[in-house]
Amino acid sequence: MIDLITLTTDFGPGSCYVAAMKGVIYGLNPQAHVVDLSHQIPPQDLRYTGFFLKATVKYFRANTLHVVVVDPGVGSDRSILFVQLDEGFLLVPDNGCWTSLLSDSPEQVIQLTETRFWRREISSTFHGRDIFAPVAGHLSLGLDPTSLGEPASDWKPLPWPLPEIKETQLVGEVVFIDDFGNLITNLPGELLRAWWSQPIEIFLKETEVRRKARTYAEGNVGEPLVLISSMDTVEVALNQGNAAHYFQSRVGDLVTVTLKE
Amino acid sequence: MIDLITLTTDFGPGSCYVAAMKGVIYGLNPQAHVVDLSHQIPPQDLRYTGFFLKATVKYFRANTLHVVVVDPGVGSDRSILFVQLDEGFLLVPDNGCWTSLLSDSPEQVIQLTETRFWRREISSTFHGRDIFAPVAGHLSLGLDPTSLGEPASDWKPLPWPLPEIKETQLVGEVVFIDDFGNLITNLPGELLRAWWSQPIEIFLKETEVRRKARTYAEGNVGEPLVLISSMDTVEVALNQGNAAHYFQSRVGDLVTVTLKE
Amino acid sequence: MIDLITLTTDFGPGSCYVAAMKGVIYGLNPQAHVVDLSHQIPPQDLRYTGFFLKATVKYFRANTLHVVVVDPGVGSDRSILFVQLDEGFLLVPDNGCWTSLLSDSPEQVIQLTETRFWRREISSTFHGRDIFAPVAGHLSLGLDPTSLGEPASDWKPLPWPLPEIKETQLVGEVVFIDDFGNLITNLPGELLRAWWSQPIEIFLKETEVRRKARTYAEGNVGEPLVLISSMDTVEVALNQGNAAHYFQSRVGDLVTVTLKE
Repeated sequence: MIDLITLTTDFGPGSCYVAAMKGVIYGLNPQAHVVDLSHQIPPQDLRYTGFFLKATVKYFRANTLHVVVVDPGVGSDRSILFVQLDEGFLLVPDNGCWTSLLSDSPEQVIQLTETRFWRREISSTFHGRDIFAPVAGHLSLGLDPTSLGEPASDWKPLPWPLPEIKETQLVGEVVFIDDFGNLITNLPGELLRAWWSQPIEIFLKETEVRRKARTYAEGNVGEPLVLISSMDTVEVALNQGNAAHYFQSRVGDLVTVTLKE
Repeated sequence: MIDLITLTTDFGPGSCYVAAMKGVIYGLNPQAHVVDLSHQIPPQDLRYTGFFLKATVKYFRANTLHVVVVDPGVGSDRSILFVQLDEGFLLVPDNGCWTSLLSDSPEQVIQLTETRFWRREISSTFHGRDIFAPVAGHLSLGLDPTSLGEPASDWKPLPWPLPEIKETQLVGEVVFIDDFGNLITNLPGELLRAWWSQPIEIFLKETEVRRKARTYAEGNVGEPLVLISSMDTVEVALNQGNAAHYFQSRVGDLVTVTLKE
Repeated sequence: MIDLITLTTDFGPGSCYVAAMKGVIYGLNPQAHVVDLSHQIPPQDLRYTGFFLKATVKYFRANTLHVVVVDPGVGSDRSILFVQLDEGFLLVPDNGCWTSLLSDSPEQVIQLTETRFWRREISSTFHGRDIFAPVAGHLSLGLDPTSLGEPASDWKPLPWPLPEIKETQLVGEVVFIDDFGNLITNLPGELLRAWWSQPIEIFLKETEVRRKARTYAEGNVGEPLVLISSMDTVEVALNQGNAAHYFQSRVGDLVTVTLKE
């Protein structure tokens, strides 16, 4: 039933670790369909991973297996989980990197214990190659996931930054910076849309961003803009420029939208 | 008839935007054959995109669809075009990024208007996911391109830097710098070849490059060389070194070849 | 018999040179299964290539063709070799970049001479596109490798740094730095394992690394550690940190393990 395997890691795009994982998967299933999602998750960044998965998993079909190896606890007693969601299947370390995807309870969570689906020798520093990859290979060949281990009913959550929504003010934060330097916040787009034609002030840190726009091209070249991101959240950007550099901004910076009476 | 889809964007190699596009394409056609060409086009750089396509598209078979999302005008009134050339099919924003490929008139150009082949909700900042990807998915399933919209007979051109060719002098410019730092110019290789055994002076900016070579290895390690690039143009390089760093060179720098009488 | 082609180059991940190679391969065999291993080999770094291949090739099935284009001698009189090993097939420049894979004699080595399997015009700077890619395409269509040229019985070796193993001291060096900044050495893991519970001193350059660990997570965040790498060699790392930055370390730095009596 699983007909596509995606790989998301913090190994770096040209890493021999990614190559080794592909070797193990194709070694088990030469017909496997393996797609790179990203190997440029910032090292050990669970929050970024959660954001990344939230922005991508839902576009894939439900019979996709997303293998996620962002795993600072590799080799310790942290578990590895197989998760079935409405949106697809996951193979993830139990460190919360995936829990951003949860709205309801997952359909099924299994803690991997059956070592016969792993590589014979298990290093203590690279479970991507020794556990994740062979299990993905077996699943792509049709292995019933319940064979992988024991049902699990709890897992490590990851705190997620929620915006503060008051009657006349929204306080959110930058949760993601893309490669253009666009600053994606956790403020829902619908809230900004509701206030769109009213007098509002928008600040990134101490700096007011005056121009509301629908598209990047509406601004002058290099002009700071507020718009609705493709994830339907408030975004601060520069037309053909890099807002992260311009504002010297980082994940966690506050963004406030204030309704002037 | 389209049996291969290539992706070229300025999103960055590990971008969640690339991943979302792949999700949408595979969501429509799990059998799609999708190949990354590059996600490292410098942001919004239409000239670079034109060069990149010129250096790659001709090597693919004609039943390949090249999806190109370098699109600073996303969400504005710029069109999206389906183009049929002798060398293959394109799905491109109408911003000139693809017109370097034109020698003759294209066989067919269609302006995308039929929203039923797009995603239901269209963001104003990410048409790669919302229009390009689903249209590519439908085309790979056999959709007749004429269903996508209206025939178009004009499009935005992109000015292309042409060399100045005089009787005893060629004046060109650096049009592309590869990851080795090799400086690729727009001076046709055949012109240099014609003067090869005659006394000539070659300058990059103010600096003479004295050694003409056929291969990198002919020079001493670190020695500046002039040779014929793999695109059959004049190239300035260093044997096992980075000419861009050595000469502090950028795209647009002048290169002159002068025939000494 | 070859059903998977992998690509390893120093062209850079978004390079038009990689794209051109893919075009040529798919042009010959639209059904080819092509997988990127890495396009981020440091430019012209034969030693790194050797390490990379050693860490990856063995995980693939034997009917995989590994195409390796790290080729500072391109266009010179260096040969191109087809090599059959127990672990798989190689298409490599004869510059030693692959000889790290040799334990026994190769099953078969053929020097490419038959130009009818190459592109019609051969540039002197890009054999990846003009020779390697078309030959890989033909091989994936079932071409008998003996048609490619003449059997070869010698090839250029690459000196490989060996550790110095004395009764009470091991002296090795950093041979590879991964994208986390972990420092992988050439000291066999079994030697450290044998001394594990005895009093030892471990130095990277002039600095003692006091903590021996089994996993990264055993250390405090940012603490320097010595552990056994996933390649079963001695590794110096930081828990959730970058050891290469911390120690300002490079490939070639000495690592000593001394047994205290």
